[in-house]
Amino acid sequence: MKFCPDCAAPLARRVPPGDSLPRDVCDACGNVHYQNPKLVVGTVPEWEGCVLLCRRAIEPRYGYWTLPAGFMENDETTADAAMRETLEEAGAHIELASPFSMISVPRVNQVHLFYRARLRNLEFKPGVESLEVALVDEAKVPWKDIAFRTVGLTLKHWFADRARGEYGFHAEDIK
Amino acid sequence: MKFCPDCAAPLARRVPPGDSLPRDVCDACGNVHYQNPKLVVGTVPEWEGCVLLCRRAIEPRYGYWTLPAGFMENDETTADAAMRETLEEAGAHIELASPFSMISVPRVNQVHLFYRARLRNLEFKPGVESLEVALVDEAKVPWKDIAFRTVGLTLKHWFADRARGEYGFHAEDIK
Repeated sequence: MKFCPDCAAPLARRVPPGDSLPRDVCDACGNVHYQNPKLVVGTVPEWEGCVLLCRRAIEPRYGYWTLPAGFMENDETTADAAMRETLEEAGAHIELASPFSMISVPRVNQVHLFYRARLRNLEFKPGVESLEVALVDEAKVPWKDIAFRTVGLTLKHWFADRARGEYGFHAEDIK
Repeated sequence: MKFCPDCAAPLARRVPPGDSLPRDVCDACGNVHYQNPKLVVGTVPEWEGCVLLCRRAIEPRYGYWTLPAGFMENDETTADAAMRETLEEAGAHIELASPFSMISVPRVNQVHLFYRARLRNLEFKPGVESLEVALVDEAKVPWKDIAFRTVGLTLKHWFADRARGEYGFHAEDIK
């Protein structure tokens, strides 16, 4: 951020009065421009013990496997975002269940949130951001080709909880 | 957002190629500027069945009561944010427990997340954003003077779960 999005004047990086962190401050109009972490929201869509994975058709991690997920948009709830991303990336219609994992990734200023979900039918198909979509059981998960650590952690918790017969809510951090 | 924060040219509001929502697009440098919901993170600090509330010294809702909470910052985890806000607003040192409530508020593009927590001692004191800080039992919660609906909902769940003898994780929306 170099210029004020409100008045186009150059921004200064400093701690505003009463604040404790450096911000992008406009000395022309006085506005302070905050930057905060983003929520990435998705699902673990299940069908008879298998989960639906998408192979990425975009960078980063083109060609690697992921759960359907993406940036939460303004004007939606976390549940809206989870359903929308699952439809967009996997063409899948789901019944959304409870939140399952929430993983902070401060290195990239993101919080990843995954819901449990059940596929309503098997009519899924790759969206424009996916090369292919596949239902896999635990033995067929491509662990070495998972796109993001939050996805790998979520899948590990999911299969462990399924084996236990009880699903928890998993909050953790990747530092 | 009127001007490009990267090059100061005027921004256009339109749907970029391959996207589905209108964004702030710069026709000069080509950058697209996304806006996404923010996380507000806080705690329900407990001491022997009482919870610690703060009376707000800032707008919005000056003079009303709230739980310690605030915008999550870049470079921190949700747990970091919860501990920091509790220290900043209530001067309280806590032992953080598990996430307790997550409430989407799409009208203001926020997701509010509260953790359970235990006070380590009774040496709390109001920070600069609080007029006063008080430990209250259920009968003394100022229900009519609670600053935000997410705080009221969280407190209701907390006292109900305490009465039940089991704390859950509560995900909901305020639409």
